[in-house]
Amino acid sequence: MEEAYPSKLLEKAVAEFSKLPGIGRKTSLRLVLDMLRRPEEEVSAFANALTDMRSNIKYCQVCHNISDTDICPICADRQRDASTICVVENIRDVMAVEHTQQYRGLYHVLGGIISPMDGIGPSDIEVDSLVERVAKGGVKEVILALSSTMEGDTTNFYISRKLSGYDVVVSVIARGISVGDELEYTDEVTLGRALLNRTVMNNDNNER
Amino acid sequence: MEEAYPSKLLEKAVAEFSKLPGIGRKTSLRLVLDMLRRPEEEVSAFANALTDMRSNIKYCQVCHNISDTDICPICADRQRDASTICVVENIRDVMAVEHTQQYRGLYHVLGGIISPMDGIGPSDIEVDSLVERVAKGGVKEVILALSSTMEGDTTNFYISRKLSGYDVVVSVIARGISVGDELEYTDEVTLGRALLNRTVMNNDNNER
Repeated sequence: MEEAYPSKLLEKAVAEFSKLPGIGRKTSLRLVLDMLRRPEEEVSAFANALTDMRSNIKYCQVCHNISDTDICPICADRQRDASTICVVENIRDVMAVEHTQQYRGLYHVLGGIISPMDGIGPSDIEVDSLVERVAKGGVKEVILALSSTMEGDTTNFYISRKLSGYDVVVSVIARGISVGDELEYTDEVTLGRALLNRTVMNNDNNER
Repeated sequence: MEEAYPSKLLEKAVAEFSKLPGIGRKTSLRLVLDMLRRPEEEVSAFANALTDMRSNIKYCQVCHNISDTDICPICADRQRDASTICVVENIRDVMAVEHTQQYRGLYHVLGGIISPMDGIGPSDIEVDSLVERVAKGGVKEVILALSSTMEGDTTNFYISRKLSGYDVVVSVIARGISVGDELEYTDEVTLGRALLNRTVMNNDNNER
């Protein structure tokens, strides 16, 4: 249904907000009305934070993660293990892996995954720069940590083929039942994978 | 858990977005990353639409609805019935009533409802200006269309008392079971109200 906004200025602001992912017209109006209730300086601060970020943000020259500096703090950290690279789709995935506190290597942010449906091909994501990093030497393992979807699998396959000529271990994060999940509710594909990728419990030498 | 953002610029933008109602840190990051993917002009357009709206928006001098002009299109519309005023909390309620296409009178936007818990008293909402409109004459009925909450009821009561000296009918929108609701799932207070406020079916003269 066509909304009849009493003001063009309001309508324009609502239209802008509803361009954001997951924000519909109703939510957008709620957000805009909240903005209207705030002092002008606060609204300016909001607007400036956005334009400032968009104009001045940088991407790490090594891993392509978002950064304020040419080299991001993770890549610049000498304490981290530079011989391991974890390949992820975007910065949110970097944050997710960092949250686990289980990983001390470096990252490589692809900026997307191969998805013909969305018109994203291998040249649209940062694969060549990953191959360059590996070609330079010093990298022992590349861990592929992409989503367990068809697009993720395609990208995994593409990258592993691109790296096949180099002396580097290419691994994929384990797929199995989630911690806390009940077996009977696990889908059969996941359960099948979990059985195949079982790990040995009775000694310290876990198999992959 | 403290998030470790790789960039201060990003962190600031995320912080600004998460000030919005119903937007948490995760959603905020998703929105900000979406902004980052867009061309700079689009981000500027978004920012400008907001600041422009905040600086230049007006409120109708008659009904206090948001407007680009001193008198809003509804109040300026000679076709509408100026003898009926529908009192609502905010502009979203105006839009909701307009959507019904059942109402041809004017509005009065309070800009809030009396809520001692939130520190909103009678002087913080547009009641005096409503009384002025009624005092000027020509208004036959004031319809109170506020939320059916304790705050709404308090505000209804306060307004009806303020208008008690004037020759005007003060009515409240009907409370009853929602269209499409099943009786057995209707809460008892609503059902009780619906019984009390029953309307006669066997002639055209519906009672209020």
